[in-house]
Amino acid sequence: MAMTDRTGDTSVSGSAGRFDQARFLRACRREPVDCTPVWFMRQAGRYMPEYRALRVHHSLLDLCQQPDLAAEVTLQPVRALGVDAAILFADILLPLIPMGAQLQFAAGEGPVIANPVRTDQDIMALRPVEVYESLAPVLQAVSLVRRELDGRTPLIGFAGAPFTLASYLIEGGGSRTYLHTKQLMYASPVAWHALMRKLARVVADYLVAQVKAGAQAVQLFDSWVGALSPDDYREYVFPYSRTVLSEVTATGVPVIHFGTDTATLLPAMAEAGGTVMGMDWRIPLGEGWKLVGTNKAVQGNLDPMVLLAPKDELARHVQRVLAQARGRPGHIFNTGHGLLPETPVDNVRTVVELVHELSERPMK
Amino acid sequence: MAMTDRTGDTSVSGSAGRFDQARFLRACRREPVDCTPVWFMRQAGRYMPEYRALRVHHSLLDLCQQPDLAAEVTLQPVRALGVDAAILFADILLPLIPMGAQLQFAAGEGPVIANPVRTDQDIMALRPVEVYESLAPVLQAVSLVRRELDGRTPLIGFAGAPFTLASYLIEGGGSRTYLHTKQLMYASPVAWHALMRKLARVVADYLVAQVKAGAQAVQLFDSWVGALSPDDYREYVFPYSRTVLSEVTATGVPVIHFGTDTATLLPAMAEAGGTVMGMDWRIPLGEGWKLVGTNKAVQGNLDPMVLLAPKDELARHVQRVLAQARGRPGHIFNTGHGLLPETPVDNVRTVVELVHELSERPMK
Repeated sequence: MAMTDRTGDTSVSGSAGRFDQARFLRACRREPVDCTPVWFMRQAGRYMPEYRALRVHHSLLDLCQQPDLAAEVTLQPVRALGVDAAILFADILLPLIPMGAQLQFAAGEGPVIANPVRTDQDIMALRPVEVYESLAPVLQAVSLVRRELDGRTPLIGFAGAPFTLASYLIEGGGSRTYLHTKQLMYASPVAWHALMRKLARVVADYLVAQVKAGAQAVQLFDSWVGALSPDDYREYVFPYSRTVLSEVTATGVPVIHFGTDTATLLPAMAEAGGTVMGMDWRIPLGEGWKLVGTNKAVQGNLDPMVLLAPKDELARHVQRVLAQARGRPGHIFNTGHGLLPETPVDNVRTVVELVHELSERPMK
Repeated sequence: MAMTDRTGDTSVSGSAGRFDQARFLRACRREPVDCTPVWFMRQAGRYMPEYRALRVHHSLLDLCQQPDLAAEVTLQPVRALGVDAAILFADILLPLIPMGAQLQFAAGEGPVIANPVRTDQDIMALRPVEVYESLAPVLQAVSLVRRELDGRTPLIGFAGAPFTLASYLIEGGGSRTYLHTKQLMYASPVAWHALMRKLARVVADYLVAQVKAGAQAVQLFDSWVGALSPDDYREYVFPYSRTVLSEVTATGVPVIHFGTDTATLLPAMAEAGGTVMGMDWRIPLGEGWKLVGTNKAVQGNLDPMVLLAPKDELARHVQRVLAQARGRPGHIFNTGHGLLPETPVDNVRTVVELVHELSERPMK
């Protein structure tokens, strides 16, 4: 599909650039498209040889904090795969550093926060963040990518949602049980709400700043919120996600609201906000769409493990996801969670082609 | 409630002993009860000082494989907590040892299988299991506990379901992504189905043998099945769970079918079988009950993390779970997953009392 230059606007900031007819952005707005747009969570990363080559000389934090490197990594999958959107290369935990978290990426073990937040004092000590100063490299990367793409492919910014960030801060890294997070939530609700208020402030400012720097859509990653019951979600998370989502939605760009394991949370998450609701492979996309309401677009939801399967199996699963969304505009194809380092690049390329071919439809 | 001796039968084997009027068994059959029965997954374990005292001198496998020790550990929570059912102390991975798995419990790291099953050859090499020989210590423990309890408290036997056992065998331990499991499933479906057939045979035989040894109910733990989409569950898991569940249901005892993260799998799991459907805290119990059908009993579903909360918070959450099941017989109170080692014993006792008090009702 050739992009239509409708406005002649050459500004790189703001949402409504001259290329807002890209099929990704049209699908976010539930407008008809020539074929289903597709991108992947963690589409830039270790599974790509170009990325691994850069990592030989640079740490993960280097790549995130040097705008030219972050821009380069962001563009790698756009060049290699033909995806319909770029997503900024960054880590959801970056905003925690200026708040005071001592963040490191231990080799093979994921993020570690050496000073986990567990007490009232810890929470009071978290600093407010002036995002334009403290997160300037990320915002510069957004502008660089936007200029480089020159409207050919829309750029998605993103941030971790307050709950997911809180869980890393409190656990000091990843977790299977969220023991400390839930202990703080249940035993010290005042402290919990104070922490969530602080995080919501930073996340909202950070996303709005990304839009001002040129992001044409943003995704809020509440990756681990599926650890909660719907009642706990309503009580401990909903107000903060809603604040973030409403502030960033007010900028006018589409907002994708994503979590995993959210089958029973989707109605509340949709109420909290989001133009597009992301969901994982556990939820048949059609059922999920009913739960969030057909006034939302949906994003998903191939099991990322399927990308390690043989091609005929890949095709069968892609077909199945597309069938769930057939006949209604507003579907963005994606995996239900991030791509794995073990994923063959060729399979990712195959999925892009399959999605485009199998969903092709005449434009009126 | 005083148990009513209705039949005078003093046999310790078979399902319909003289104490089948225990409120746990009545609830499994959806008969009215004086108050809601309660037990906990992993109610025997590290959170109890009596258990830790035994572990000083015995490994986990020792405790499982010496019938007198397994019986003693099984009885500890019955004495200490006043729960309405005992559950055999054992590990779901025990049947994998006679199949050929080199199983060890690494300190603090959970189970490790030194020879994971990844190829056709690995699967062909798995041995069939003569459960009455190879798992005799477990069956002896069942009979010992049954005799010791003398009908005061019903005894639940259990086994891991084929999918969950397959995931441990293939990954060589626990997993967050089930990468190897799904790779085998998608890339080598013939091998996958052969493995599941072997596992279903062993699991069905093992559960039936536990019933013959005296278990008055059994639970099938498909703890990790929530990693799958409903379509994949139907294709790769359903036939094997159904075989197991139908064989053990034919013995006449109530069968509890449990998994976590199963919000979208519940209808298919209920179709696969089970007298009682277990579910975790992510699913409001009332909604889950609708999904499985009101001709099933339900078990659950307090977040085990709530047991680490202050008492008033505990009461609020217990109340909330009970409210979801109010007005319909057939609810067995439990946590949505196993108790954690960090759980205060006193809180567990409090939950038992709260459940009984808050659900008390006059018997007709």
